[in-house]
Amino acid sequence: MGAVGLPARVHVREVGPRDGFQNEPETIATADKVALVNALARTGLSRLEVTSFVRADVIPQLADAVELLGAIDVPDHVSVSVLVPNARGLDAALEVRDRFDEVNVFLSASESHNRANVNRSVAESLDGIGRVAERARAAGLRCQGTISTAFGCPYEGRVPVERALEIARALHDLGCEEVGFGDTTGMANPVQVRAFFARATAELGEQVELTAHFHNTRGQGLANVLAALDAGCRSFESSFGELGGCPQSGPTHPATGNIASEDLVSMLHEMGVETGIDLAALIGASRAARDVLGRPLGSHVLTAGPVEWR
Amino acid sequence: MGAVGLPARVHVREVGPRDGFQNEPETIATADKVALVNALARTGLSRLEVTSFVRADVIPQLADAVELLGAIDVPDHVSVSVLVPNARGLDAALEVRDRFDEVNVFLSASESHNRANVNRSVAESLDGIGRVAERARAAGLRCQGTISTAFGCPYEGRVPVERALEIARALHDLGCEEVGFGDTTGMANPVQVRAFFARATAELGEQVELTAHFHNTRGQGLANVLAALDAGCRSFESSFGELGGCPQSGPTHPATGNIASEDLVSMLHEMGVETGIDLAALIGASRAARDVLGRPLGSHVLTAGPVEWR
Repeated sequence: MGAVGLPARVHVREVGPRDGFQNEPETIATADKVALVNALARTGLSRLEVTSFVRADVIPQLADAVELLGAIDVPDHVSVSVLVPNARGLDAALEVRDRFDEVNVFLSASESHNRANVNRSVAESLDGIGRVAERARAAGLRCQGTISTAFGCPYEGRVPVERALEIARALHDLGCEEVGFGDTTGMANPVQVRAFFARATAELGEQVELTAHFHNTRGQGLANVLAALDAGCRSFESSFGELGGCPQSGPTHPATGNIASEDLVSMLHEMGVETGIDLAALIGASRAARDVLGRPLGSHVLTAGPVEWR
Repeated sequence: MGAVGLPARVHVREVGPRDGFQNEPETIATADKVALVNALARTGLSRLEVTSFVRADVIPQLADAVELLGAIDVPDHVSVSVLVPNARGLDAALEVRDRFDEVNVFLSASESHNRANVNRSVAESLDGIGRVAERARAAGLRCQGTISTAFGCPYEGRVPVERALEIARALHDLGCEEVGFGDTTGMANPVQVRAFFARATAELGEQVELTAHFHNTRGQGLANVLAALDAGCRSFESSFGELGGCPQSGPTHPATGNIASEDLVSMLHEMGVETGIDLAALIGASRAARDVLGRPLGSHVLTAGPVEWR
C-alpha cells in the first residue's frame, strides 16, 4: 500500500552497547559488556555501535571504551562504530584505530537542544564535526553524522524539515557518508515521518545513506519505522532489549527509550524484509542483558517470543 | 503515502472495562469499576464496552455486570456495549436492557481456537450467534460480531483471509452491523494487515462497519493501526492503560495485551485524525486505573505524557 513499496532488505545498526548502556545508572562490568557485544556480533548483524569516546566524568559508564574495544571479538563482516563527540574524543579513538570501522559524530537540529547537550551553537558543532570528519576519513574511517531532535525538540517544538535537511546536507559536505535522523524524545508521528523521508530521499537519497533512529517513548516507534520504510528509508538503528532512553522512569515503566531491536527485526522479517539477523540469537542477547542488568526490559518480543506460525 | 489517504476522523471503542478488567487476577471492587467507567465516559469517547454477561464461575471478575450497569452514569452520546457469549448471557443482559445500546457477540476464525475458547465448532457458534442476534435486534440493540484469531491462530498458524471474510459475511447476514477482527495473540504484521483490510473494505466495506482490534504483544500494535488506516479501516478498539492481554506475564512486563487507548489516540491526533476524545482526560482515567490496580501499566503515553509542541 506504500507508494514506494517495501524493500527486500534493510540495514539495521545495533546501538544498545553505546546508546543503551550509557543510560544505565549502575556500572556494568567491562567483562559483561564484552560478553554482550560478542553475543550481538554473532547474531548476523552487520553494524554495531560499541561505545563512545566521551569524557569519563560526563559518562562514567563508557569510561572503559579502550579496554572494551580491545577485548571484544567481532567477526570481520561486522562494521564496528564508536561515537566521537569532539577532537579529543577522536584522539583517544585513534589510539585504537584498528579496533573499529566507523565514527559517529552528532549534533542537534535545534539550537536549544544542541546548546543544552554540548554547549555549542549548531554552526560551532558543524565546524568541529568538519575537523573530526576530515581526520577520521584520513584514517580510513567511515563517517556517520547523527542529527538529534530531527523531528521535534522538547525546548523549541517543531523543527522545520528544511532545517534538518540543511544540516544533513552540511554533514554530507563535511564527509559523512551516512546521516541519521534521531527522534530523540519520541515526538515523531507516522504522517510526519512519511513526509520527512519522502523529501529526504528525494533530495539527498542519491548522495548519502539516510538512517532513521526512532524512540518508542509514546509507543509509535514501529509505526514510524513502517512510515519511513514506505517513504524509501532503508537504514534503521535500534537497541537490543529496548535499552536506553529514560532509565529514570525505572522499573515502573522501562519502555521509553529506543525501539527494541528484536521488536524491529521481528516486524521486518514478518513483513518479508530481510535484515540478515537471526532473531532467536538476538533475543538470546537481550535475555543475557536482562540477566546482567537484573531488571525487566521494555522489549516486547523478548517477553512474548517470536511469532510462531506452526 | 497510503494509497487511500488518512481519514479526518475514526471511531474508537474503549474496551478496557471488559477486555482489560476480565484479565485482572485480583477482584476489582464494583465501586472502583463504576468510577473508572464514569471517568472514561467523560473523555469524549462515543463507544464503550463496559462488561460481559458470562458465567460468574468462568470469569468471576465480571460477575457484577448487572450491578455495574445499574450504577454507572454515562452521557447519552456514549454507546454502551456488553459482550454476550450465548443465549443465557443475552437473557441476563435483557433484564437490564435499558442500561446499554449494543451487544458484542464473538467467535474465532480458526476451529481450534474456537473449540478451545467456547467448546464449539465455528458453525455451531454462528448458529448460536444467529439466534442471539435476532433477539438482540428485536430488542432494539445494535449488534457487533468479533472474530478472534482473524490474523493468525496460536494452534493453527495462518488463517486464510478468505476464511475470516467468509465468517464476517456470515455475521453480517445474521444481523451484525459491525464486524471486528481481533489479532488475539499479536501475530499480525503491517503488510498482512494492509492486504487484509484492503480486501475487507473492498468486499464488505459498503455493507458492514469493519473494526480492527490489535494487540501490542510484539510491539507492532500501532504499526498495524497505521496499516489498517492506510487500507481504509475507520474503526478501532483499544484498552485504556493497555489493560488486558496476558497479565500472567505480570509486573516484569505489563505490555503484552491490547493496544493502549492513550497511545492510539495520541498517534491518531498527532497525525491529524480526530477521535473526539480528550487525551488528557483519557490519561487521567488510566492513571486512576493504575492507582486502583496498584501496578505499572503497559501504556507508553501514560508514562511519557502527550507530545508537547511548545
